[in-house]
Amino acid sequence: MYRSHNNGSLRASDINTEVTLSGWVQKSRDKGFMIWVDLRDRYGITQLIFDEERTPKDIMEHARTLGREFVIQITGTVIERSSKNPNLPTGDIEILVSKLTVLNEALTPPFTIEDETDGGEDLRMKYRYLDIRRNPVKNSLIFRHKVAMEVRKYLSNQDFIEVETPYLIKSTPEGARDFVVPSRMNQGQFYALPQSPQTFKQLLMVGGMDKYFQIVKCFRDEDLRADRQPEFTQIDCEMAFVEQEDILNVFEGLTRHLLKEVNGVEVKKFPRMLYDDAMRRYGNDKPDIRFGMEFGELNEVAQHKDFSVFNNAELVVGIAVPGGNSYTRKEIDKLIDWVKRPQVGALGMVYARCNDDGSYKSSVDKFYDQDDLAKWAEVTGAKKGDLICVLSGDTNKVRAQLSALRMELATRLGLRDPKVFAPLWVIDFPLLELDEETGHYHAMHHPFTSPKPGQLELLATDPGAVKANAYDLVLNGNEIGGGSIRIHDKKTQALMFDYLGFTPEEAKAQFGFLMDAFQYGAPPHGGLAFGLDRLVAILGGQETIRDFIAFPKNNSGRDVMIDAPATLDEAQLKELHLKIHA
Amino acid sequence: MYRSHNNGSLRASDINTEVTLSGWVQKSRDKGFMIWVDLRDRYGITQLIFDEERTPKDIMEHARTLGREFVIQITGTVIERSSKNPNLPTGDIEILVSKLTVLNEALTPPFTIEDETDGGEDLRMKYRYLDIRRNPVKNSLIFRHKVAMEVRKYLSNQDFIEVETPYLIKSTPEGARDFVVPSRMNQGQFYALPQSPQTFKQLLMVGGMDKYFQIVKCFRDEDLRADRQPEFTQIDCEMAFVEQEDILNVFEGLTRHLLKEVNGVEVKKFPRMLYDDAMRRYGNDKPDIRFGMEFGELNEVAQHKDFSVFNNAELVVGIAVPGGNSYTRKEIDKLIDWVKRPQVGALGMVYARCNDDGSYKSSVDKFYDQDDLAKWAEVTGAKKGDLICVLSGDTNKVRAQLSALRMELATRLGLRDPKVFAPLWVIDFPLLELDEETGHYHAMHHPFTSPKPGQLELLATDPGAVKANAYDLVLNGNEIGGGSIRIHDKKTQALMFDYLGFTPEEAKAQFGFLMDAFQYGAPPHGGLAFGLDRLVAILGGQETIRDFIAFPKNNSGRDVMIDAPATLDEAQLKELHLKIHA
Repeated sequence: MYRSHNNGSLRASDINTEVTLSGWVQKSRDKGFMIWVDLRDRYGITQLIFDEERTPKDIMEHARTLGREFVIQITGTVIERSSKNPNLPTGDIEILVSKLTVLNEALTPPFTIEDETDGGEDLRMKYRYLDIRRNPVKNSLIFRHKVAMEVRKYLSNQDFIEVETPYLIKSTPEGARDFVVPSRMNQGQFYALPQSPQTFKQLLMVGGMDKYFQIVKCFRDEDLRADRQPEFTQIDCEMAFVEQEDILNVFEGLTRHLLKEVNGVEVKKFPRMLYDDAMRRYGNDKPDIRFGMEFGELNEVAQHKDFSVFNNAELVVGIAVPGGNSYTRKEIDKLIDWVKRPQVGALGMVYARCNDDGSYKSSVDKFYDQDDLAKWAEVTGAKKGDLICVLSGDTNKVRAQLSALRMELATRLGLRDPKVFAPLWVIDFPLLELDEETGHYHAMHHPFTSPKPGQLELLATDPGAVKANAYDLVLNGNEIGGGSIRIHDKKTQALMFDYLGFTPEEAKAQFGFLMDAFQYGAPPHGGLAFGLDRLVAILGGQETIRDFIAFPKNNSGRDVMIDAPATLDEAQLKELHLKIHA
Repeated sequence: MYRSHNNGSLRASDINTEVTLSGWVQKSRDKGFMIWVDLRDRYGITQLIFDEERTPKDIMEHARTLGREFVIQITGTVIERSSKNPNLPTGDIEILVSKLTVLNEALTPPFTIEDETDGGEDLRMKYRYLDIRRNPVKNSLIFRHKVAMEVRKYLSNQDFIEVETPYLIKSTPEGARDFVVPSRMNQGQFYALPQSPQTFKQLLMVGGMDKYFQIVKCFRDEDLRADRQPEFTQIDCEMAFVEQEDILNVFEGLTRHLLKEVNGVEVKKFPRMLYDDAMRRYGNDKPDIRFGMEFGELNEVAQHKDFSVFNNAELVVGIAVPGGNSYTRKEIDKLIDWVKRPQVGALGMVYARCNDDGSYKSSVDKFYDQDDLAKWAEVTGAKKGDLICVLSGDTNKVRAQLSALRMELATRLGLRDPKVFAPLWVIDFPLLELDEETGHYHAMHHPFTSPKPGQLELLATDPGAVKANAYDLVLNGNEIGGGSIRIHDKKTQALMFDYLGFTPEEAKAQFGFLMDAFQYGAPPHGGLAFGLDRLVAILGGQETIRDFIAFPKNNSGRDVMIDAPATLDEAQLKELHLKIHA
């Protein structure tokens, strides 16, 4: 037996008990006549004491040799601490050690095992097993476990069945790139790893499973952006005999349950916003509604003068920055530089100060008088002391730019409190999205999403206007989940494939089994998938997902700890009937 | 809203309620003036009634057109059934239909959607989404969910944390073949899919996670035997600061919990058996101890006469078949043929009848007298009316042969009751196993398993005798779990790799990160993994795992429903820098 207790469990009530503890040496202080060692494990820290008067000499000497992160086992007696530490659950006691065993020595770790470490990202990733010893990472992983358990309990109590779908499936050119797996037994053929269990969960609905969920790894071979992982985890869900309203209610219930159980936060009914309204009011389909700064569209009140920049723009749109009139000229210039960075891409920014005396001072006073600016203030909701920031240009671009500015300013103003949770349903997404490069439309969610009733006919004449039975769940400016009511009859699905540019042969080769299934009694169905990595990070009050993943990959898709991917033996390649082709 | 209730929920207390139901047409009976339809969903069956007197004519006519597996929605009133069906939870009521909508038509399914279907295995697999509608498959999947939930609840309550480990890892030639995944971004390099999260769970222990578990897919590119899947699911577990005793206790607790919660069976403390004893007493390292028929080693009482077959054998061993003296000569001849089949491989079988009068009659009466046979009976535990079956030859082979015979006879005798559960720990496995082909020893479990204390030295002189801190959990003759206490210091691990024929360079290239980790304070640790597919099947009282997997692959590793694996586009291959090489 390596331990009678863990290092977080002993209290004053245990005084005089003999205990055995194991763990890591967090630190030791040697005062000559007395040595203190902080012994750490997952559950906490317990202070050990060795002193000249009470500790045998050989143990005293042995204790002096303990280095950081040594793994030790001790036996001793729980005694009252002379100077208690109220910040530590075990702070009332310490252990007078009578037996000391070193279970494993340790080299000095390459970075400190402290909440605030001196280790950079690269080093932490290479020695991730040491990084995990640090509270912030350890607690994030425990937090993730708790969230996943609560998801499972909630859905299971609602009669959802977790069904494991296969990982070795079939590649489909649709959507992002698949990771593929060569088959040794079927020469020249490949499996693909699932980008999501989409078709399988639909088949489970055809199979009468009624309510399905799965917490499942998914894979996308994309050029990685920051904070994207080639493998990621979804809470994947599907229900039969449901309309959009049923789905929103169930998963709103789940999200509310998580906020309550995991964060102790009670949230009222989630607001709902049309996609078109979200774009108009926030320039974004995942608005952060923890704060205001809504867009004011200024075309009517800014295109009547001689300012050609605005007059030539498809959209003139502004936001009011609370208290922004206090910004110096230099600060505003910096803000203008910020929106002109290539990542944002605005050509410039017009601003108007809202002075405390009710007057305005703008960067375009040459063109606009006080009455004009008063109207801008009205439209953007600006008050005395605010700053109105105005961008103009093509609608889609300028919305994205102003949205970026809005988020940046909110961050600077401290309006994005990670302890405040503002969920939001965005509904009625467009069915199709125009690919600017090719000029073709493709499915905004995926080709199984059903159009709103009666809109199928619009496909031929005004495809961009067709709305889908598709919805996203947004939390604090992040899409944490999304889904749709699916097509469930073969005819509509064939029409959709046709519209998306699949030949009947391609559609049959890739999704024939699904269309076949639709002929044998498919129920109406729909679902939703949460991105677990992101959900956990946001519930945990963090912006980045990496510390909520035990062994993440870097931006080149590499695991730097195990050094993967790596080359294969020639023999292994040969067995797989493969050759590398430069 | 598609339904107010599901099809398993209505009772006599709901009579006179108006309800809306949705589901599949299980069957319909048309008596002309009256039509009954059984409406099915996951939750049950509800009988619908249409009759000339009370049902509008158009609905009556519409009802006549309903085919099997049509998806319909109805509204109607719950009424009392005239002839109640006590076998159906909803058998007291039926629904008098006032509104009928066909949600989706259905072609006639290629096999009947009944508990006993007319569909063969291949057809059922191709249309798995229809097969899942059948109770036996549906209930198996729901059962699996229940088992997995109970595992998670139990381990979570014991402070285990479920941590997701990566799927895109590094290929290691050790053990079975890996499935690999070409990396597009790292030309000529590959990820591998994990055969198990073994090294990652050990790194989590080094990282102080203390108690880890994960229900996780694992992958092995093996030539498939019957009832093996290329992807399978493990309950993977690891604990730090533990000895074998701690691990056996925790997972015995988990298994007992499952038997109680899932099967309603209370099992006492699990017996433990040394590997050597299991082989001696049952010829098998996973003995089914639901019944006796233990081996009796007969060398001492059978090698003193002139019977050269026995005299030349390394081992002479027999079992007593209860009541086997009732077998006719012909039946015994058939049994001899059975052990001579190539799958078993015995050269012959000696038998002795134990007559009711206390006398014996054997197939080798020429060599052995009544006193000899009485000793055989004593050693094998044979009683009056039994049959003693004796095989001889090389120890390992003859044990396997007699074990096969023992299992076969037990099955025939009905001694393998799937409702009886007899768990057993088999402990002290050999560390190494001799590969008969190459003459080399390799790790019986894996190269991270620790030898028993003080046995490391034996490696050089008598490797086959070295025992490991390794254990299997056996249930009803199946290995449902296995594990070991791991090596946790770099020196021993390097020694082990060396012994297993890894050069230091190979060991470093493949497991350098683990050996590095061992230098930074690795705690003593050990673990266990259950095969979930098998565990669920056995708890469910079944021999085969296939119906407990939603979308299994066939014996060629193919998913015949989606037709995977499949060829890739040339463009896709090119992006991956690959060429097919015949």
